[in-house]
Amino acid sequence: MKVGIIGLGLIGGSMAIDLKRKGFASEILGVEADPVNAAAAEKIGLVDRLIDLEGCLEQADLIVLAVPVGAAVRMLPKILDRISETGADDKTVIDVCSTKEQLARCVKYHSRRDRYVATHPMAGTEYSGPWAAMPGLFDGHACIICDQEESSAKAVRVVEKMYETLNMRTIYMNSSNHDVHTAYVSHISHVTSFALALTVLDKEKDEKHIFDLASGGFSSTVRLAKSSPDMWTPILSQNRDNVLHVMDTYIEKMMAFRNAIDQDDEDKVRELIQEANKIRRIIR
Amino acid sequence: MKVGIIGLGLIGGSMAIDLKRKGFASEILGVEADPVNAAAAEKIGLVDRLIDLEGCLEQADLIVLAVPVGAAVRMLPKILDRISETGADDKTVIDVCSTKEQLARCVKYHSRRDRYVATHPMAGTEYSGPWAAMPGLFDGHACIICDQEESSAKAVRVVEKMYETLNMRTIYMNSSNHDVHTAYVSHISHVTSFALALTVLDKEKDEKHIFDLASGGFSSTVRLAKSSPDMWTPILSQNRDNVLHVMDTYIEKMMAFRNAIDQDDEDKVRELIQEANKIRRIIR
Repeated sequence: MKVGIIGLGLIGGSMAIDLKRKGFASEILGVEADPVNAAAAEKIGLVDRLIDLEGCLEQADLIVLAVPVGAAVRMLPKILDRISETGADDKTVIDVCSTKEQLARCVKYHSRRDRYVATHPMAGTEYSGPWAAMPGLFDGHACIICDQEESSAKAVRVVEKMYETLNMRTIYMNSSNHDVHTAYVSHISHVTSFALALTVLDKEKDEKHIFDLASGGFSSTVRLAKSSPDMWTPILSQNRDNVLHVMDTYIEKMMAFRNAIDQDDEDKVRELIQEANKIRRIIR
Repeated sequence: MKVGIIGLGLIGGSMAIDLKRKGFASEILGVEADPVNAAAAEKIGLVDRLIDLEGCLEQADLIVLAVPVGAAVRMLPKILDRISETGADDKTVIDVCSTKEQLARCVKYHSRRDRYVATHPMAGTEYSGPWAAMPGLFDGHACIICDQEESSAKAVRVVEKMYETLNMRTIYMNSSNHDVHTAYVSHISHVTSFALALTVLDKEKDEKHIFDLASGGFSSTVRLAKSSPDMWTPILSQNRDNVLHVMDTYIEKMMAFRNAIDQDDEDKVRELIQEANKIRRIIR
């Protein structure tokens, strides 16, 4: 099967590596709008061939849209238009974005909605671009498939097989629930890391102190603050209502802590920490 | 040299392992008030001998006070009293607590202040108790020695040698600066993790969803929320003013994010993320 990957960053590039290495793809066709990233992807050998979007839609059997979600919302309807025009009946299109509701909406009534499968492989690092791509990125992680009843059963099977090849566990939910849950278990932790980095950079003018004193705990908590603005600006915009709702809850919890510390209420501080400790039951 | 360790948890226990293994200590005497932890420390073999506090102060050359900082503030003056009574002139006492100013204050005018060296080995995990102790915990991390001019030069040299044995880099600062900097690079990240855990536990009533969907990013950001209330309640209390100051800055940064997202101001969100990205220059 020829796999076309549009966007050769961390996710698209890592998929290219493993789909070829594991024999799922006979050929990887890569589309990359940024000339520096395109040259890098070719040099690293992420793809068999660089190609333009038109050529990719024509030649690939499975098309992976791996661009930031803002661009994906603009591109997806046009990709389905083009596939409709060519009359091809067996092409499958997926996206790999972190928010799903607006994508679902922009193609809901498209005549070829059935060729599109909405997916979110929940794996990544805080790095981006073709240089960040790596084998095994998806191994053992969860992949969410959204609104699968709106895709053709055959297209869903192709995609399930692809994620099996990547060694991912598949979970099914609708795109609206997806966006609520990812606001809690992914988007908010990026926002808290960004805010932590801003706080420390603002107050610790002497970077040497941060460097000398930063323990493993701080590094792990602030790690996500290295994440790409190109990826995260549209995610926070597209999932705005859910993210705002979680942020409000988060700010409430911070204020509860703040007030307990301010009043030197050690019983309350202890109670809050003990409650927070329950995350042990869930996270390894 | 006989080393007495008071408190056989993560830090005390890990010190016991490496100081014996690397030949710095000829014998490790352990004091542990909690009978379950004492039995565990003996079973694991962290110490050569369990002993009571009185016996430890009498027999040990170097005494490591490795209890939560609230207990340390109560115990340290009494330990120096006892050493003063025995007339011993060559015993060294250290603590390993995460806040330093109140400890410094409680012994500032003690007649044997010179025998005490204030230290903070900046290493740890989110686990606690003797079971969490491990070899190599301190390897390559920073250790802060505070107010060293108030300790006898000989006592400081013993302690420097001990931390060299543990393969730590030593940094010197006064206890007041210590508490400001650790509020930024350690204490706030614990508070943000606690608040994140509380938020997710509060809103995601279905724990299965958290478990299924939690990516590596979420786990790394929330990891510190597993930390012990026995350790962190007194830290947040003793470093209250600094911690409140950092929390206020942090809440401001969260509000700036919240407002930019609320107004769908993508330029502002991007700018905040780009600013936060500067943490890359500092944190690996």
